[in-house]
Amino acid sequence: MEQATTEGAIDREQLHELAQQLRVDSVRAAAAANSGHPTSSMSGADLMAVLLARYLRYDFDAPENGANDHLVFSKGHASPLLYGMYKLAGAIDDEELLTFREFGSRLQGHPTPEIPWVDVATGSLGQGLPISVGIALAGKRLEAADFRVWVLCGDSELAEGSMWEAFEHAGQAGLDNMIAIVDVNRLGQRGPTMHEWDTASLAARAAACGWDVQEIDGHDLEAIDAAYARALAAGQPAAIFARTKKGSGVAAVEDQPNQHGKPLADPEAAVEELGGIRSLRVEVQHPPTAQPYEIERTPVERPAYEVGEKVATRGAYGDALAWLGAVDEKVVALDGEVGNSTYAERFAAKHPDRFFEMYIAEQQLVAAGVGLQTRGWKPFASSFGAFLSRAYDFIRMAAISDADLKLCGSHVGVSIGPDGPSQMALEDIAAFRAVLDSVVLYPSDANQAVALLDAMREHRGVSYMRTTREATPVLYGPDESFRIGGSHTVRSSDDDAVTLIGAGITLRECLAAADELAGRGIAARVIDLYSVKPVDAETILAAAGETGALIAVEDHWAEGGIGETVAGVLAEAGAGTPLVRLAITVRPTSGPPAELLSAAGIDSPHIVAAAERSLNA
Amino acid sequence: MEQATTEGAIDREQLHELAQQLRVDSVRAAAAANSGHPTSSMSGADLMAVLLARYLRYDFDAPENGANDHLVFSKGHASPLLYGMYKLAGAIDDEELLTFREFGSRLQGHPTPEIPWVDVATGSLGQGLPISVGIALAGKRLEAADFRVWVLCGDSELAEGSMWEAFEHAGQAGLDNMIAIVDVNRLGQRGPTMHEWDTASLAARAAACGWDVQEIDGHDLEAIDAAYARALAAGQPAAIFARTKKGSGVAAVEDQPNQHGKPLADPEAAVEELGGIRSLRVEVQHPPTAQPYEIERTPVERPAYEVGEKVATRGAYGDALAWLGAVDEKVVALDGEVGNSTYAERFAAKHPDRFFEMYIAEQQLVAAGVGLQTRGWKPFASSFGAFLSRAYDFIRMAAISDADLKLCGSHVGVSIGPDGPSQMALEDIAAFRAVLDSVVLYPSDANQAVALLDAMREHRGVSYMRTTREATPVLYGPDESFRIGGSHTVRSSDDDAVTLIGAGITLRECLAAADELAGRGIAARVIDLYSVKPVDAETILAAAGETGALIAVEDHWAEGGIGETVAGVLAEAGAGTPLVRLAITVRPTSGPPAELLSAAGIDSPHIVAAAERSLNA
Repeated sequence: MEQATTEGAIDREQLHELAQQLRVDSVRAAAAANSGHPTSSMSGADLMAVLLARYLRYDFDAPENGANDHLVFSKGHASPLLYGMYKLAGAIDDEELLTFREFGSRLQGHPTPEIPWVDVATGSLGQGLPISVGIALAGKRLEAADFRVWVLCGDSELAEGSMWEAFEHAGQAGLDNMIAIVDVNRLGQRGPTMHEWDTASLAARAAACGWDVQEIDGHDLEAIDAAYARALAAGQPAAIFARTKKGSGVAAVEDQPNQHGKPLADPEAAVEELGGIRSLRVEVQHPPTAQPYEIERTPVERPAYEVGEKVATRGAYGDALAWLGAVDEKVVALDGEVGNSTYAERFAAKHPDRFFEMYIAEQQLVAAGVGLQTRGWKPFASSFGAFLSRAYDFIRMAAISDADLKLCGSHVGVSIGPDGPSQMALEDIAAFRAVLDSVVLYPSDANQAVALLDAMREHRGVSYMRTTREATPVLYGPDESFRIGGSHTVRSSDDDAVTLIGAGITLRECLAAADELAGRGIAARVIDLYSVKPVDAETILAAAGETGALIAVEDHWAEGGIGETVAGVLAEAGAGTPLVRLAITVRPTSGPPAELLSAAGIDSPHIVAAAERSLNA
Repeated sequence: MEQATTEGAIDREQLHELAQQLRVDSVRAAAAANSGHPTSSMSGADLMAVLLARYLRYDFDAPENGANDHLVFSKGHASPLLYGMYKLAGAIDDEELLTFREFGSRLQGHPTPEIPWVDVATGSLGQGLPISVGIALAGKRLEAADFRVWVLCGDSELAEGSMWEAFEHAGQAGLDNMIAIVDVNRLGQRGPTMHEWDTASLAARAAACGWDVQEIDGHDLEAIDAAYARALAAGQPAAIFARTKKGSGVAAVEDQPNQHGKPLADPEAAVEELGGIRSLRVEVQHPPTAQPYEIERTPVERPAYEVGEKVATRGAYGDALAWLGAVDEKVVALDGEVGNSTYAERFAAKHPDRFFEMYIAEQQLVAAGVGLQTRGWKPFASSFGAFLSRAYDFIRMAAISDADLKLCGSHVGVSIGPDGPSQMALEDIAAFRAVLDSVVLYPSDANQAVALLDAMREHRGVSYMRTTREATPVLYGPDESFRIGGSHTVRSSDDDAVTLIGAGITLRECLAAADELAGRGIAARVIDLYSVKPVDAETILAAAGETGALIAVEDHWAEGGIGETVAGVLAEAGAGTPLVRLAITVRPTSGPPAELLSAAGIDSPHIVAAAERSLNA
């Protein structure tokens, strides 16, 4: 390898050489993979060369150092540029660079945290900036830290509303540790972007959100340098709208249409045009030593409810979260401007410094959680379950990022009553189950909600708790234990003819149905399937073996919920016990909860009828 | 009822009376329901009184009249205000008004199209404005119509990025038939909004998006009137940021905290303070007669592929869509700036007037489709399947709206290869199945994709087609027929020992596995389960009865997909035939498709092994 270039000041010509190496390596990596996004990388090469050589503070030998700056590629498809920077920093060698996109290589098509210097997976556009808001919030609000969050954004992704949620939130929160570098290369995947090089329109919007804005030529090394210097001194979040040319440096592709997402036709000629292969190295500045910080913890007792008392599990969520904030200083909470409905406000009341109001912006809500957890915080983010569907792409990507993210959705099912179907989460179990390695919990009473929320705190990964709006009777004592992957058999006997499986609001209905069936001389087992994923297959299969039929009841669409979870267990085992699935199958309306449960066919009389039918079949 | 007020000009005092009636009726409706959002309605009463009396052109007796203006309550929780307007217009009577939120009443907690004057369900904030963009696009781009789209927005919902997708898109498309009326009442659900009465910051952003902007006192009737007049003459989309007071007119709640989403404590006193109950009526202007319009149709032949030819189903989507555009002038297409990947560009090439480029803004993409279908268009909206997850809340609400929306997600599953997991749709079947009355199709070859897309065109409702990136062999002749709810048994014999169930890319693997098993003396039935929802239960149950085991194989997470669909069928029938589910269970990476299918355990060798294991169990 050639001499590192940062012995002494780096001059313009040296910066140009670094940028050319980034271009060359983008071309080479994509050529080796025969796929990838070299032209989207080349447009940002000058921007990243100056950043790496003069501004980024990062110890590549110690990615766990909390004082390191963060570098987030919101335009994740420019991964060849990012990996080229790693080579320039000496973090990977040329051989590894050329494993780009190979099976088994950590240098995947889009960056993931399998690479130690990557915080979060990107590649779904419009996510890097809102996630960076969470990282920056950790630095400003929790850690009083000096690190900066540098975010390379594309111009195409500025069409995503989530980017503007981020601009707005960062502006309002005064996150002067954020620098958004927008690589305005004018060309999207299939043609020109909406605004091409009209950076003024974009800058005006960012300025109105409270950002310091600059418009520069993104290939002018002095201008880039000056822009970074100003951004660091801005005292507010800073956005640099840099006009660039896609594929810059190679005439055959520079600012040409139809050159997105494909290797160059003649990579060798391109490398020659760019001045050949280089092996330069930059000594990246190390960060200053991190300062310790302290988190105050207001003492809060573990909530406990009396059996028979009527408590909504959403209330228990709020109580338990406040308690967990006292138990664990890493616990933080975020809410989507409905904290008086989800009861996240109870956490906020006890631990205001660790509560984040994210307003009606569920993508930013979830993204901020993902950002916070990159710094070791344990975020609990809540909204109505229905509205978490707004952030589904972020949740999907959080799992790809292997993020430690805890989510709570309140107001699930038709049992919310008069507000009507727009407010009812009826797809949340299906959606959350179909997330990699997720945990889906649906507590049936308040004490169980407390225990399960503590289990979520201890669990590392994407987990989701579904809570009920209505107050329901407390069934379990405060000392009973519940676990991820568990279930609780509330009633059973050797004579059980049928098994009723419910969770949340439907467990109450199952218990009432069991009473009614008992009066008719039919013994019914009742299983509280509070852990929908992972599921307690053993208990289900035992019930299938010991009783004549199973009735699964849920306040959720028939697809992907409790019923299908049970069906999967039975079918895989080849159990021939028939399963009746009671779930929501018609469009709900407004009305009192009891009428809606009845209209949907999931209340106790319908369960009784289904049990009798199944036994007479 | 009192004399209608529009005999002659309506003066200021009359307008005030109308607004007071809207306030009174909001208070009364919420009191009758003992729930609802009266204060959020009262803030917008003056704005809506002036609109109804002087600007809206709507024939309430003929909601099907295509010349009617559209009125969309993006802040759907202000439903008492909307229903009060209906009473003022004589469309409903006072008795019906007071059925608000009752079970069986069409006056639900949030508006739905069960009411004939409502275009789309709202109540999930941030959706009304982007949907209105679709309505306005229909008027400007397709119908050359004179109707206007009036949208009442809340200030809290301006935190949703989807609103800014709409501002941006409407500005770029020059939708001068859109008027956004923002009721800036400063207070959200749990406290002040992000910007309170700082309308300047909001207006600056909208102006930068190309809108005419005004900031007014939303309780000043003359100012409101002048603002509407200017908006109609603006020649660009117009936004009116109206500073209002939540609960205006009743001192006990006006601009007070903790008054969101609840009836007034003393409704009778409030009605008295507002001047008592009124029964005024407004003669709403009727629209001018609609002008006919013509749609040009470029002839396109139905695509047909030769058996054995290698064609990607995404390519067939593009070909078939271009054909359907020729068959049916109501077919329109939208894409999220990936038309050269989804192949929606093939429609655009033939029918440019009916193609809508929505850029990288999937919420706006789906919302525009919902808007277009309110005017009888048949929208097909496409993006990568993974990125449709971005619009999941819009899809959920589209079903609540009973919308006729056709969606296509390309690049599904690990078989996309080197781009890696951020680009792979692996949750789309689960997510789309968990949508009310949805149809989920997953064609296994190109000719089938053509037939199924035509079926989607004819089907009314939310339907989804999943397409494959890779070219796969054409299996079926162009004249074979396929239907929603059908399946195709590709191989079967009386000796079948095992049944292999696949769709899309995994059908190819099932066929290869069946070949291999045949060589080992095991006859395997192969079912192409191209219609995942609704599913052909009969064929599955027949196979369960006639073969010893079923293997379901899918390029999708194990939850909520093909395997669980099959499991549900088996378990409900009490079929004891064991089911093996092969699906994606570990985090995928980049790599060649064949290696990824193998690593995931869903390629033909894994199917063969699973079949042999299941027969030896």
